[in-house]
Amino acid sequence: MDIYEQITKMADEIAPELVAQRRDFHKFAEKGWFEMRTSSIIARKLTEMGYEVLVGDQVCKKDARMGVPSDEELEEQYERAVAQGADPEFVKYTKGGMTGVIGILRCGEGPTVAMRFDIDALGVFEEKDKSHRPACEGFGSVNEGFMHACGHDGHATIGLGVAKVLMSIKDSLHGTMKLIFQPAEEGVRGAKSIVENGHLDGVDYLIGSHVSDKADDDPAVVIPGSHGSLATTKYDVFFHGVSAHAGGSPEKGKNVMPAVATAILNLYGIPRNSAGMSRINVGTVVAGSGRNVIADVAKMEIEVRGETTEINQYMEEYAKNIIEGAAKMHGCTSEMKVMGSAYSLTSDQALMDRVRRVCEEKLHLPVSETTSSRNGGSEDVSYMMRRVQEQGGQATFMRILTKESAPGHNRRFDFDEQALPNAVKVFCGTVYDILG
Amino acid sequence: MDIYEQITKMADEIAPELVAQRRDFHKFAEKGWFEMRTSSIIARKLTEMGYEVLVGDQVCKKDARMGVPSDEELEEQYERAVAQGADPEFVKYTKGGMTGVIGILRCGEGPTVAMRFDIDALGVFEEKDKSHRPACEGFGSVNEGFMHACGHDGHATIGLGVAKVLMSIKDSLHGTMKLIFQPAEEGVRGAKSIVENGHLDGVDYLIGSHVSDKADDDPAVVIPGSHGSLATTKYDVFFHGVSAHAGGSPEKGKNVMPAVATAILNLYGIPRNSAGMSRINVGTVVAGSGRNVIADVAKMEIEVRGETTEINQYMEEYAKNIIEGAAKMHGCTSEMKVMGSAYSLTSDQALMDRVRRVCEEKLHLPVSETTSSRNGGSEDVSYMMRRVQEQGGQATFMRILTKESAPGHNRRFDFDEQALPNAVKVFCGTVYDILG
Amino acid sequence: MDIYEQITKMADEIAPELVAQRRDFHKFAEKGWFEMRTSSIIARKLTEMGYEVLVGDQVCKKDARMGVPSDEELEEQYERAVAQGADPEFVKYTKGGMTGVIGILRCGEGPTVAMRFDIDALGVFEEKDKSHRPACEGFGSVNEGFMHACGHDGHATIGLGVAKVLMSIKDSLHGTMKLIFQPAEEGVRGAKSIVENGHLDGVDYLIGSHVSDKADDDPAVVIPGSHGSLATTKYDVFFHGVSAHAGGSPEKGKNVMPAVATAILNLYGIPRNSAGMSRINVGTVVAGSGRNVIADVAKMEIEVRGETTEINQYMEEYAKNIIEGAAKMHGCTSEMKVMGSAYSLTSDQALMDRVRRVCEEKLHLPVSETTSSRNGGSEDVSYMMRRVQEQGGQATFMRILTKESAPGHNRRFDFDEQALPNAVKVFCGTVYDILG
Amino acid sequence: MDIYEQITKMADEIAPELVAQRRDFHKFAEKGWFEMRTSSIIARKLTEMGYEVLVGDQVCKKDARMGVPSDEELEEQYERAVAQGADPEFVKYTKGGMTGVIGILRCGEGPTVAMRFDIDALGVFEEKDKSHRPACEGFGSVNEGFMHACGHDGHATIGLGVAKVLMSIKDSLHGTMKLIFQPAEEGVRGAKSIVENGHLDGVDYLIGSHVSDKADDDPAVVIPGSHGSLATTKYDVFFHGVSAHAGGSPEKGKNVMPAVATAILNLYGIPRNSAGMSRINVGTVVAGSGRNVIADVAKMEIEVRGETTEINQYMEEYAKNIIEGAAKMHGCTSEMKVMGSAYSLTSDQALMDRVRRVCEEKLHLPVSETTSSRNGGSEDVSYMMRRVQEQGGQATFMRILTKESAPGHNRRFDFDEQALPNAVKVFCGTVYDILG
Repeated sequence: MDIYEQITKMADEIAPELVAQRRDFHKFAEKGWFEMRTSSIIARKLTEMGYEVLVGDQVCKKDARMGVPSDEELEEQYERAVAQGADPEFVKYTKGGMTGVIGILRCGEGPTVAMRFDIDALGVFEEKDKSHRPACEGFGSVNEGFMHACGHDGHATIGLGVAKVLMSIKDSLHGTMKLIFQPAEEGVRGAKSIVENGHLDGVDYLIGSHVSDKADDDPAVVIPGSHGSLATTKYDVFFHGVSAHAGGSPEKGKNVMPAVATAILNLYGIPRNSAGMSRINVGTVVAGSGRNVIADVAKMEIEVRGETTEINQYMEEYAKNIIEGAAKMHGCTSEMKVMGSAYSLTSDQALMDRVRRVCEEKLHLPVSETTSSRNGGSEDVSYMMRRVQEQGGQATFMRILTKESAPGHNRRFDFDEQALPNAVKVFCGTVYDILG
Repeated sequence: MDIYEQITKMADEIAPELVAQRRDFHKFAEKGWFEMRTSSIIARKLTEMGYEVLVGDQVCKKDARMGVPSDEELEEQYERAVAQGADPEFVKYTKGGMTGVIGILRCGEGPTVAMRFDIDALGVFEEKDKSHRPACEGFGSVNEGFMHACGHDGHATIGLGVAKVLMSIKDSLHGTMKLIFQPAEEGVRGAKSIVENGHLDGVDYLIGSHVSDKADDDPAVVIPGSHGSLATTKYDVFFHGVSAHAGGSPEKGKNVMPAVATAILNLYGIPRNSAGMSRINVGTVVAGSGRNVIADVAKMEIEVRGETTEINQYMEEYAKNIIEGAAKMHGCTSEMKVMGSAYSLTSDQALMDRVRRVCEEKLHLPVSETTSSRNGGSEDVSYMMRRVQEQGGQATFMRILTKESAPGHNRRFDFDEQALPNAVKVFCGTVYDILG
Repeated sequence: MDIYEQITKMADEIAPELVAQRRDFHKFAEKGWFEMRTSSIIARKLTEMGYEVLVGDQVCKKDARMGVPSDEELEEQYERAVAQGADPEFVKYTKGGMTGVIGILRCGEGPTVAMRFDIDALGVFEEKDKSHRPACEGFGSVNEGFMHACGHDGHATIGLGVAKVLMSIKDSLHGTMKLIFQPAEEGVRGAKSIVENGHLDGVDYLIGSHVSDKADDDPAVVIPGSHGSLATTKYDVFFHGVSAHAGGSPEKGKNVMPAVATAILNLYGIPRNSAGMSRINVGTVVAGSGRNVIADVAKMEIEVRGETTEINQYMEEYAKNIIEGAAKMHGCTSEMKVMGSAYSLTSDQALMDRVRRVCEEKLHLPVSETTSSRNGGSEDVSYMMRRVQEQGGQATFMRILTKESAPGHNRRFDFDEQALPNAVKVFCGTVYDILG
Repeated sequence: MDIYEQITKMADEIAPELVAQRRDFHKFAEKGWFEMRTSSIIARKLTEMGYEVLVGDQVCKKDARMGVPSDEELEEQYERAVAQGADPEFVKYTKGGMTGVIGILRCGEGPTVAMRFDIDALGVFEEKDKSHRPACEGFGSVNEGFMHACGHDGHATIGLGVAKVLMSIKDSLHGTMKLIFQPAEEGVRGAKSIVENGHLDGVDYLIGSHVSDKADDDPAVVIPGSHGSLATTKYDVFFHGVSAHAGGSPEKGKNVMPAVATAILNLYGIPRNSAGMSRINVGTVVAGSGRNVIADVAKMEIEVRGETTEINQYMEEYAKNIIEGAAKMHGCTSEMKVMGSAYSLTSDQALMDRVRRVCEEKLHLPVSETTSSRNGGSEDVSYMMRRVQEQGGQATFMRILTKESAPGHNRRFDFDEQALPNAVKVFCGTVYDILG
């Protein structure tokens, strides 16, 4: 039995364990920077397997984290995590939102292969109807308003499965493996702070993945790489004016309301770009304090995207101009706070070819014909990929194909858990192909 | 000692009691439809004085109340009121927001005089700095986010003072007195439901009042009437669209965000009206569910006003047109819910003249030269005044002059409590002039 | 026969002559700064009567004129005026738009009374249907696109009638009379340049008038004064951007189109003012050069108004802020050029009382009860009135009541010419009352 | 000497003649539907060469023409064309804008090859500075405001050159050739009316071309085909409201101005489309009648585009919704008139391969590596291509590479006239390859 067969066999054997783990993560879904229970469990398991484990501020550079919730929320969530069975030793390191874990396995001389698994849930209220499998089978989220509606419960689980299999074949490997369990991918808030801590420096290969829906009759288990993930920047925008009684002296206020409205209409109207796709969204607005008061404060959550980083910059600059102009026009002030950002990403052809070859020739797993998917989304694995690629390394972001019950971010999202052992095989087979 | 002297003397004697009562109401400030503790205390005191007392759904017609909070909030506030010392017998009638009290004193044949005292607080966070007298002297609101920043604590207190004095001179009076303690004046939500219960039918005279700031050197204690309060309608506006992933398929959504923005800009742009003053305000907006999601839901709190009821109707119709058009334009739907309304109001000259004469000649209180004040605000006492005037009765809405520490609705609002006995004198003197 | 009777008699006698003159002016209607034929005829007639006559740049200060058309248009109109029978001697002074005439009559020591008559037509296409009297009776405008739709043909005629009557009674007068025939009142462009030439300095009384519609059964011939004319400022606004191919590279342009749209919506949304009436209008927009080109240039004609000069200034400043912000928001530039302006105006009670008394007691002409009219319009006679009032003089702006066939500025406007002798009587009677 | 050598030789020989012809067309530039002189000359020349010639309403179906100017303009331009040396016999057929010419050469049995040459100029004012070659060498446009700034003077000339060369080799050809000289390509207004007259029915091959800039060091003379021309629809949009005096009674108007502004901002904000490129432009706006009048009429020239016809339809529908909503919102009405339209276009690979092979192997002309160009423009040759492709025929739209002095539609546009014989060779070589 060669190593590829060993990988395949072991992945299939641990499949039930993976399903159980994924359902545990699903049940105790934690949004970005709140993955305290999740991180503590991952750290515990990696430690038990024999990995060198980084936690707390060893993972994310504290000040480089984006979109971190308030101290009150972090404290409250910490208490929740502890109450929900977080590992008592490791949870301490996650205080204040210092979530994320890195497991390192050093096997002598050889290249460094990093793998990235994101672990955070979304701010979605999960479906409670029994027609939704998690609800029916008892692993629906118990954390009201948090839900793994994008499959990161699976990603974290895959990472643990990969850790287990790689450890079992470590004597055949030559080089270093880094398993990066990244927090706060939603909102593209976490990857940058890991890159800024230097964890991608010296990495020769980076492999990431995301579950992705497939057609019923598509036998393929993986798309070996992606293009078309958009560069993006997320902003919280604040407007400040002066309130006044709307009936008694409306002219004495500085009204943020028309400033916000002007910003919204003009933001959506930023010119389309002949160089490629662009996106703009004003996702949320909260403005004003009372019906009969000239509004003196507003907050908008917005994002811009671009097919290239340059287009994204064009959007950024135009958006800033609009927001400043809209505020000044009404005697108000504005402020923009970056809450997340990602580059556009491009998988390296050589690494995609390697994944394809390993899957088809060694693992006998069908691979999708497509090697790219243009989907308008954004991924902050792009920060990690760019750092690796800048150093001459290779990176790919794969799609683990599976049957999904609803689109990502939907309250009825679920996926076929066969994806879990499949992904473990693809990751481990590829790592062995590089380090074997 | 004539009756006017008696009134004067008694009002001065009970001044310390009025101050204490006002400070109690101030400390336990309750927003509209939450005035459960306040109502229970008023009902208790009127009962003890010997008034015939109406409470619960005898006061406001249940379904005619506007802008009633959710059942959950009402329940929560009920518990709070009980915990804060509401009268155990009378508080029960206020369950579900059935606040407000009417005290009736029947003294044989004669005209009916109604008096209106509003009792609700605002959604304002009171200043806690010691430079603010209520904070310094320990009667600042203990109900975070509720504050008597418009003087209705004083109005309710004046009502109780008037009740006491009138009872003491009842043998000199011929006719009926109705003391209406109205809930939910803020947002002009309560008066209509009292009128619809028929309490103003058959009323010959209606007197209301509001505290009002005066210059340091102005000796006057009252303005005998008002004009210029604006007709108004308050709406909650809802927009419904379809959400979609803002990066992946923005064209699949029906975005309420540009609909809201279009509505805001066009609402403020409703033509000025050559027939008189008009007002429009979009006071609050809450829209969208996430930064990267095409927004599918929004709520706006708006109000229109007009110097006349006709101008207000023009504003109403134009606003509806704009909101519908803005929604349809983006494939969305809209809904407008009336949350409050008031007519414009005009005090009757004869009744103003009577107040002036009583004050100057009988009570020896200085009266302001002005008999009107154009202030851009709205008052739902207008519903009551209109009903009385339609029947051929007379109505006036007075200004009780006092030194205020900050404009109404400000977190530092406070007033000179000498206004309390002053107002009791004016009300009682006028009632005696009519019924004596 | 006293002087008042003389005035009355003479005014009645010259009525047919006044009608003929008014119809001549009507037929050869000339817009502001084009009143070359009109001015030349007035100058000729005043000269023949024996007045000291000022023409050309003696009347309006050249650089203080506002909204002056292009040299090409002025040249073209000059040729038209000559061809239409302008007085050959006097028309020369009007070259380049130096229109307007002042006639002076000095009768020894005494106060100075100025009278103002505006002479320009509107840019309106006159009705040609025979149901419109000017069309039927052959005095419809022969200058296509110019029409006396606001009665200034009558005003100029009244001025000539007044000149004739005053000259006939000059031996009974003690003081100085200035008859100011002002160009370019429409768009409030001309008065300021006359004031700036010093013609109102030292004036003790100023009387102006405008024809005004009355009810069929209203016997009154005059309203002795006005309030409520609004302060106003007129701007031409220019936006400059950068063009680009709208299909090929829209992001390379700087698009004035959304800047213009943003300006329009926000201008109409300038807050209503609790201090009084305000107005804003974007009357015209011309923008862009071709359907498939990102627009790089736009022009808007706008105006703001205010019940007081302060409110007008508030509107001016807010408008500037909006226009600058809207331009910058899209990387464009903007420019605002003042094209006209007027103050709010208030007639002096003493002078209004004098007019009323003269009419009722001396001339036996019925006077309107009203002494003010709030109409939302603007009048640059306000520049003259303010100068006179600043010096301690008295000024009034009367309404000459007449039956009108359509609202002012309408293509079917006409008026009952009995207003002509009526007005002559009121003016001359009042002057005699002052200087007699 | 084979036929390809013959084609090459003849094209080189007639090069000076082509230059002269192009400069004549350039000098007498005629905008769409005004190409009366141009059409008459083409018809005359084709007739003289021996072609069967279609003119007048034989070419474009009269009622299917889009964006036809007013009768007055057509009449005026007809007189100009006659005065500028139009062919007296053929110009008559162009009356009323019935421009365009088709030349047919029938050479027995065989396929039908159509070629399309567009002939109209743009509404651009040509540069008069001598640094612009046409100005310097005396062939700048004498028709002020019309300019061949997009190379259609060259296209028409190429058509005449192709006609001449094909006629000279007609004995070697087997099949039918149609040379379509199309009017009004700018604004995509003309092609549809030719297709609707059935001229593309039964066509097996269609070849069109456009001159296109190239890098100095690029030896290629042609790109054999295009993709990415956008589907488009052009609209004239009219808004109708009710005017009113902006100062006196603004509320009595129905103001089109905020309707226009709302439409502009929302049109630019139509969601980007995940299915591909889209475009929107509001190119021109003319609105309102006077500064102090509530605007009652407005016209906008707009266009939408899409990478596919489906995306263009999405844009069309959304735009209609916005325009209707914006009008209704202010009590106004709107109307949209289609002024031009085109499909997206895709060149057939087989025909592109044929062009490449003919150029490289037979004509020894270098061909661009690129076979597509994504440029955001639109071309109504797409109507013709779609008809041919629907019938199973092949079509391509080539780029004739040349050095250009400025971007298309710029007042300084000019091109290297070597493109003329080059294009003649490519067309004729390809036709011979098909019909030889």
